[in-house]
Amino acid sequence: MPELRKDPITSRWVIISTERRRRGSDFGIKTVGITQTAQKEGCPFCSGNENLTPPEILRLGAHDGTWRVRVVPNKFPALRVEGALDRRGLGLYDVMNGVGAHEVIIESPRHDSKLSTCTPALWRDTLWVFRERINDLKRDKRMKSMVVFKNYGEEAGATLEHPHSQLIALPIVPRELATEMDGAKFHFSYRERCIFCDILRQEMDEGERVVSVSQEFVAFEPFASRFPFETWIVPRNHAAYFENISDGQLDDLSAIFCDIFRRLDRTLGDVPYNFYLHSAPADGERLADSFHWHFEITPIQTRIAGFEKGAGFFINPAPPEEAATFLRGV
Amino acid sequence: MPELRKDPITSRWVIISTERRRRGSDFGIKTVGITQTAQKEGCPFCSGNENLTPPEILRLGAHDGTWRVRVVPNKFPALRVEGALDRRGLGLYDVMNGVGAHEVIIESPRHDSKLSTCTPALWRDTLWVFRERINDLKRDKRMKSMVVFKNYGEEAGATLEHPHSQLIALPIVPRELATEMDGAKFHFSYRERCIFCDILRQEMDEGERVVSVSQEFVAFEPFASRFPFETWIVPRNHAAYFENISDGQLDDLSAIFCDIFRRLDRTLGDVPYNFYLHSAPADGERLADSFHWHFEITPIQTRIAGFEKGAGFFINPAPPEEAATFLRGV
Repeated sequence: MPELRKDPITSRWVIISTERRRRGSDFGIKTVGITQTAQKEGCPFCSGNENLTPPEILRLGAHDGTWRVRVVPNKFPALRVEGALDRRGLGLYDVMNGVGAHEVIIESPRHDSKLSTCTPALWRDTLWVFRERINDLKRDKRMKSMVVFKNYGEEAGATLEHPHSQLIALPIVPRELATEMDGAKFHFSYRERCIFCDILRQEMDEGERVVSVSQEFVAFEPFASRFPFETWIVPRNHAAYFENISDGQLDDLSAIFCDIFRRLDRTLGDVPYNFYLHSAPADGERLADSFHWHFEITPIQTRIAGFEKGAGFFINPAPPEEAATFLRGV
Repeated sequence: MPELRKDPITSRWVIISTERRRRGSDFGIKTVGITQTAQKEGCPFCSGNENLTPPEILRLGAHDGTWRVRVVPNKFPALRVEGALDRRGLGLYDVMNGVGAHEVIIESPRHDSKLSTCTPALWRDTLWVFRERINDLKRDKRMKSMVVFKNYGEEAGATLEHPHSQLIALPIVPRELATEMDGAKFHFSYRERCIFCDILRQEMDEGERVVSVSQEFVAFEPFASRFPFETWIVPRNHAAYFENISDGQLDDLSAIFCDIFRRLDRTLGDVPYNFYLHSAPADGERLADSFHWHFEITPIQTRIAGFEKGAGFFINPAPPEEAATFLRGV
């Protein structure tokens, strides 16, 4: 059983996998959480190889090889669904058994499909599945926070080429989300306004960091972007929970995702990237006014090195105003 | 002039370099802060090529090619020493001009020298220089926090092969250090004990995560290690400021650094790594009781991917107890 451990100084949680015993030198550069690198032949996510994955949780489309999206449990999950939460102390330290869920969303039956060149309809399938899986996992009261994320390209931590994203359901609220929630609560406590709504207002007024605006969403480069071409997609109307998104908003979101990834592709080429969703946690009802869900897209152009790790401080060589100009121009 | 910008939600600062104008596609994978990749011939850090660096700030050893360590300003600094601090608001946002210092510590005149195979005497030169530079930069009252760090290997963000580390002096306290300081202050506020001293006591009692103990220092794998073989070196006696280290302690620290890097090298091979120093900031006198300086060494075996970026939550496939067993065994 994996373990969740909390650093007593910073309150940062980590998942310690205690299952595989290896020699020290067996730890090569790799990303944990996904199975292994695979070529197209023998790829467990390709149509025709459905028997290579654990039994599926959800499928869009027909039961033969013409399905559109499949959701399967991760074969080597970071957390496990079985078991009760067991919180305990070990002297100074806090530990919890690794209860959670770790799912893979296979975005296409085709190995060479790419989100940067795909259609809004294909994006919609994936985003629809995110909503569906979060709503389903929320019924399990042990799950507090659902982290949806995608690693595209080796530099972004992807170890399987076939297009996929992941969902990890956690029994706690992770640190980055907690930091955002605290900042948003603090702002709300003396202004009685959502800080994200305030940011959107300023960004729409100034315009220089805005990349794309639709009826329901704004895509912009944040003022304090950590990474070159970091792009956020934020709903224009206040909403704390992504999973409450309407079908109409889902159409609109698919179109703006499609638009942004085309712009990134034309500006940066086939760049590795991560994206992830920040949505209010499952028991965060008091956050409905102050928190505002959004996606953060981070293309990978620079490495996270000692300064970033040690100081939590990023050096970004591309001013977001410039990045936005490039992205608007294509 | 670079700019320091603060994210209004998370209070995270970033350095935005506003100097180089490029096409979007010019941003390849790279680490900012250092000049450029260089082979041995034409390496600006090799002995004989001293004229390729900006004028040196400090030198250990003779003025011919037999120097031991040189400190030079970074040719493309993330921050600049000139100018007054100018803090201002832009609507919701906070911005400061990029005042600070960015120095490179060239650890050896030899291109192929490696800390993992070098002697305590060579380590001592580098550590002595860290102390010297921090004490010198502290005289500049604009500088609050001095971040000393090293990137070794391409995966760790090094873009020059020649052995070197870096120092960035910041006009603010960076987020990771602030988080540690807050956690330590909180612990001190109700226990009146330093949390690092408490951790050392527990680690020495339990022993299973301890790698090496000397008269003055303990090296151990932290309980909630983010990375496989993450190793901290902590002084056994309480001390908040690295720069107050005595000459005798410097000898001892050199020996334990040398020992740990030999163990890492024998266990993991020539692994890329980062290390960085956490020391109390320059105006942190009230932290003298609660904060405890230390080095964190993070070998790079796994990639920081979407989950880590989005959640601030790490998945570590190597339990620290196992890593410590490997490291003790060599």
